This record gives sequence, structure tokens and C-alpha cells, in this order.
Amino acid sequence: MNLSNHREKSIVVKKFGGTSVGSVDRIEGVAQRIVQDIESGQQPIIVLSAMSGETNRLIRMASEVNPNYRGRAYDMLLASGEQVSISLLAMALEKRGYSAKPLLAYQIGIKTSAIFSNARIQSIDTKKIQSVLDAGEIPIIAGFQGLTGEDITTLGRGGSDTTAVAIASALNSTVCEIFTDVPAIFTADPRIVKKAKELKQLSFEEMMEMASLGSKVLHYRSVELAAKFGVKIHLRSTFEQREGTWVVPEGETMEAPVVSSVTHDPSIAIIKIFPLPWNEGFMADLFFELSEKNVVVDIITQSHNEEGQRLAFSVSESDVPRALEIVNKLKPETSNVDVMKEVTKISAVGVGMKNHTGVAARFFKTLYAKNIPIHLVTTSEIKMSAVVAKKHLVEAANALHTEFGLDQ
Amino acid sequence: MNLSNHREKSIVVKKFGGTSVGSVDRIEGVAQRIVQDIESGQQPIIVLSAMSGETNRLIRMASEVNPNYRGRAYDMLLASGEQVSISLLAMALEKRGYSAKPLLAYQIGIKTSAIFSNARIQSIDTKKIQSVLDAGEIPIIAGFQGLTGEDITTLGRGGSDTTAVAIASALNSTVCEIFTDVPAIFTADPRIVKKAKELKQLSFEEMMEMASLGSKVLHYRSVELAAKFGVKIHLRSTFEQREGTWVVPEGETMEAPVVSSVTHDPSIAIIKIFPLPWNEGFMADLFFELSEKNVVVDIITQSHNEEGQRLAFSVSESDVPRALEIVNKLKPETSNVDVMKEVTKISAVGVGMKNHTGVAARFFKTLYAKNIPIHLVTTSEIKMSAVVAKKHLVEAANALHTEFGLDQ
Repeated sequence: MNLSNHREKSIVVKKFGGTSVGSVDRIEGVAQRIVQDIESGQQPIIVLSAMSGETNRLIRMASEVNPNYRGRAYDMLLASGEQVSISLLAMALEKRGYSAKPLLAYQIGIKTSAIFSNARIQSIDTKKIQSVLDAGEIPIIAGFQGLTGEDITTLGRGGSDTTAVAIASALNSTVCEIFTDVPAIFTADPRIVKKAKELKQLSFEEMMEMASLGSKVLHYRSVELAAKFGVKIHLRSTFEQREGTWVVPEGETMEAPVVSSVTHDPSIAIIKIFPLPWNEGFMADLFFELSEKNVVVDIITQSHNEEGQRLAFSVSESDVPRALEIVNKLKPETSNVDVMKEVTKISAVGVGMKNHTGVAARFFKTLYAKNIPIHLVTTSEIKMSAVVAKKHLVEAANALHTEFGLDQ
Repeated sequence: MNLSNHREKSIVVKKFGGTSVGSVDRIEGVAQRIVQDIESGQQPIIVLSAMSGETNRLIRMASEVNPNYRGRAYDMLLASGEQVSISLLAMALEKRGYSAKPLLAYQIGIKTSAIFSNARIQSIDTKKIQSVLDAGEIPIIAGFQGLTGEDITTLGRGGSDTTAVAIASALNSTVCEIFTDVPAIFTADPRIVKKAKELKQLSFEEMMEMASLGSKVLHYRSVELAAKFGVKIHLRSTFEQREGTWVVPEGETMEAPVVSSVTHDPSIAIIKIFPLPWNEGFMADLFFELSEKNVVVDIITQSHNEEGQRLAFSVSESDVPRALEIVNKLKPETSNVDVMKEVTKISAVGVGMKNHTGVAARFFKTLYAKNIPIHLVTTSEIKMSAVVAKKHLVEAANALHTEFGLDQ
């Protein structure tokens, strides 16, 4: 893969995820793979996540101290995970005779916004990375972390993807390789839909929808950034040599099927409040406070009859306790609150929807034919989502996969 | 304890060791203790070690990658341990309503020499610490780490003690509190010598001898630094409120007993090489290479008879494999190498030795009376050490403890 910057050696930013560096053995494997790439003429720049399990271990300790705290100390705590993985990989490369320099955010000036745990990258000092390359060293960069003033920030779960894309873009690379434990992105979760196929290509827009629909494969903002700066993402397996899925600008996709994938987010819940008197203040207060407490609300519906308004919204299952605390604090005494668990959101995504009508009709008809009740619905230009009972997930996903021609 | 700088609140540097912050519960306990100190009018500056077990976990991973590597990446790896403990303590203090700022070496400019894993502190930017205090925040400083250029260095095992003393000295504090899991320094190891007593005071010089004799209570360089800058060290228990042992300038000790303590280093071994032809080059090469490979040689003896020279030296037991590798590489083919394990070094320490003669005679006579053979001997102005078989340790330690009047 020859990049456009016409250096003697092509610079390629490669990001390895948590499972790829999940043990010392796997770190050795990554080192081996990097050595092969160097021997085949590449000049790699490495970005790492923390060893899998490590971030969770740190979060667990933080929760024991204070489950509600977010801020400077929390971000400094979490950022230690990447410090461990980059140090170990640098050692593994040195052992193989390659000089490697582990680099933390402060060393390459990754400046971010001041929002702890969800910071956005603002700038990166490429001169520093370039000087490491010029010294003949392999830069091994801690993903997920940045700096606001002198304090460490983190970019949110999966943020190392964003670090990698930001570095590729800052260096004018046209490609960023993201190595993970799956070989590609599929038309559906193969554990649910047996006929799911690998996707060779996907547009940025589709990938963003999938990321926001709960696909954990790529960090949402990494795709947003890649789209903005035209950095193609090559998502591929750490454990195999073959190509995976390319995430590219829309015009470059080979074809634009109406629906390119059927995805689902298994861990959601619906919170219903009824009856509500007409009161604009309540809704504003509620959704403001939910967002303040980092509860992400996905679908919101509102209806009313003579008895009053009815509000329903979906949140991720793990956020239910925090959401309920806020709801119960703010709601009128006369309102009842009902939580619906054991539901899942199933979605069809495809840029082709822009040019095709009747997708919604086919979507509803498919679920209706299977007798699957729909509890909430939401759509965008390129996706259609419905919340259904978990027990219907497999049947619904397979039926939609077939209906939209993804089985072939 | 009022310090000499006459601020409204007295600044006290307090260092908590690995066992003091060994779990989330213990970190909560440390936070509680700090809150009490603040409420009693102190302005604490906290220095922490990594949670106990954490540094060993990191070293284990590093050894799996490359047991012989020391350098930049290794130090960055190890420094992550303190990053975790200071973040968690800051969170625990915030939970209690106190603003606390976790600080890494780069944030307060702890500049060191460029010797990785054994760096020496050169300067500290006290303006930064002062500005944190001025902002009403409690500085929670990562011990053990420093910076050379932009790279993280570490100060060697136990280096957090040195960080604490260096900060106290930089801030012109006259006292540095070191909290640990023992209540005081004893006249001997209470597990070995039943009649061992707590020491109220000890001179810097005696403490340095004890540290270099294998006492793990204080980092050698921290005592050296404290002596140089006249910072008294108050060594005390994290788990009790009472006073422990004060380490102070010699003139300030209440009395100067001939021997203030009997200590031992259980994990040593003697390596003997015989016969050696007269060859200055071999000795120079051997001890140069041992030091290059970080093998600390303690006692060296050399003798010769008509068959050739005889060399014996002691190293810590864990260094035997590395030491033997070097010996076998360099020694003449005709020399034999013999390793004596299961030995221990027992020492009597006391500044009073300077003014008393006959200590060596009493020392030898005591062991001789018990029929305990001595394999190597070394002395300094204030200590006398002998290497004996481990099986004689308890008997030798108790006999010396009694002989030098420490039982009362």
C-alpha cells in the first residue's frame, strides 16, 4: 500500500486495540508484525490502546472510591493503561533490534478540549513525531489520552481510534490501519445472523451510523474525523495478514446497496413517564440533567391524549439507575414511571436509502409478517431503527437481512 | 508540630508507602488521615508510592518481554504505578469535599540525571507546588519518578522516600513524614530478636548504614539527602496515630549508644574464585562488568598463597545467576568457582563506635562463644558486619543484641 506522500518509506499509522495487546504474548506478536512491515519498506507509526481488561480494572478501582466522580484524577488514572502497553511494546521492539520510543500525550503535544473523559483533539505537534522518525526510531504513541493545559484528558471509550486517525491526518497520511480482533465489518452480527457476510467497503456515513448504533468496532469520532480529513480507514485483524474492511468516502464505494448492514444494540431500556402535565420546563430540565450526568438518550417519543402527555425515551441498560434517579427527582408527583427492559434496538443502515423509497414500508412489513411488535422507531437519512423485545432479536435480524438482499 | 517557615498553616510533606495505599480501602484510610491533619491546621503535601504489588506486577510483565532490558521504556512502564495511586487518592479526597490535584513528575518539573532506573533528583520546580497550594488544592505527588529531557526516569526501588525528602528540602521544610506499615525502627528485627525495642531517635549516619545493610525501611538516598539538607525524617505507622522513630542529625540524638541496632540482610550469597593467577586486569574487568549489569557487590576479600590468589565477594542472592554468568565469561579456565548460599550478613550499627574501642573484639568474642563461624567480615566507622550461615542467624542476632546492651 503506497501512500501519496512519496517519501522513501511510506508512513503508515497503525493502531492496535486492547485485545491485540491483551497479554505479553500478544504484544510480542504485534512487535513481530511491525518488524515485518518495516522489512517490507513501511515506516510505521504505532498507536496503542491499553491491554484488554486493564481499563476495566482501573474503572473498577475508581468506582470503589467514588462511582460518580469524573474529572482530572479519573482521566489521569485511566491514561495509565496506555502508558503500560506502549512501554511493553517498545521493549519488545528493542529486543528485536529496533529502536522504539514510547510517547505520551505531553511528549507529542496532543492538545484537547477541557472536557474530561470525553475530550476532543484540537492539535498535535507533528514536528515531534517527525523528529522521532528522523532519529530512526519507531514512535509508539499512547492512544486515548491528550492534554488540556498540563492536565491529562481522555477521549472516551475507544478513543485510541481517534488518536490514530488524528495523527494520520496531521501527518497528511491518506490511510490509517486499525487492527482489531475481528477480521472485518459484517453485514450483521454473525452470532445472530448465520448468513452474515464480510463487507469489503463501507462509506464513512454508514460507519458513523453503525458506530452510533452501538457497533463497538470503531470509535464514532474517529470516523467523523476520517471523513472530515479524507483519511481512509483500513479495519483489519491483528491475527491474520489479509485485508479487512475499508471505510472510504461515499463516492468510492463500489456500489451503494439500499441496505448494507443490519445491526443491533442489545443493551438498551425504555423509560416511560405518564401522565405528564403540559410543562415545557420539565422536559428541558430532564434532558439537560441527563446529559450533565453523561446519560446518553437515544430515541425520544412524545404523545398525548386527554389524560395528559406520555413521554418515552431509550437509554443504555447500564444507565438506567442513574437515569431513574434523575427522573424521580424531577417528575411531578402524579406521574408514573415505567421501565421496560429486555429490549433491543435493531437497525438497517445503508447510503442507498437516500435514493430509494419504500425502505420503511419493507422494514415494517417484514417485522409485521413475523408478528414482532415495535415499541419505538427512529429514522435518519441512511438508517431505520426499531426497538423490539430481546426474544425477537434473532428472528427480526435474520428476516431483515434476507429482506434487504444481504444473504447472497 | 510547628515548622519553621511561620506560615499560617504549617506545610508538612507526608509520604505514604505501597502497603499504606495497597487497596482502595487503605487509600480511603489515608484520605481520612489527611483530612484529620488538615482539620488540625496542617497544610499537607502528599507523596505516594505505587499500590503494593503493583510495581512487582509491572516488573513481571517487563521480565516476560525482556528480563535484561533497562532503559527509557522500562522506567515509563514502572512510573505508571504511582499515576494510579495518586489519581485514586485525589478522588478519595474530592469525595470528602477537599480539592486535590494529582501531579506527575512533568507537572512539577522533577528533573533528574539521565540514568534510567537509578536516576538522581537534580531540581524541583517549587513554584508549581506553591501555586497548587495557593489555589487551595492538596498536591498529591507521584513519588519515584522524574524527568530527563522529556523522558520519564525512576529513582530506584524505594525512590518515593527520596522524592518526599527532596520536596521537603526544596520547600525549606524541616520535617518529612514517612508513613509505612511498621510503627518504628527497632533495635533488631522483632521476628528474630524477641527483646527488640523501638528506637525513638536515630542519627542520619546510623540510618544510612542500616539502609545500605539491607533495611528496607528507608531508601538510602532519601537519608543521604535528608542529612545533606537537614530535613528530619519522622518514620511512623499509617495505621496508628502515635509517634514512630525520628531520624535526626547526630548532635540531636539523645544519647549515642555504642551500638544502636543489630540488623541483618538475609538474602546474600558468597561467590569464591580460586585459584587466580596474578592479573590486575581480571579484577578490574570483573567488577566493572558486574556494576555495568547492576549487580551490587558488597564485601570483597582477597588473599593469596603459593597456589594463587583467592577472591571472594558477596552479592544479593537474586543477583547470583547474573553474577555467575559474568564470572564464568571472564575467569581463567583454570579457576574454580564456588557459590555459598544460605548465608546472611549480620551487623551491629552505632555512631557510638566512633568513640569506643573494643567493639570488634566484643563482636567476634560473642560469635566465637556461640561457636558460630564467620565467613566474611567488613567494618566501617560506625558498623561491623559478618557473614554467617543462615542457620546461626537467630542465635547470633540475639547474642549480639544482648552483648551490646539493647535488651533493656
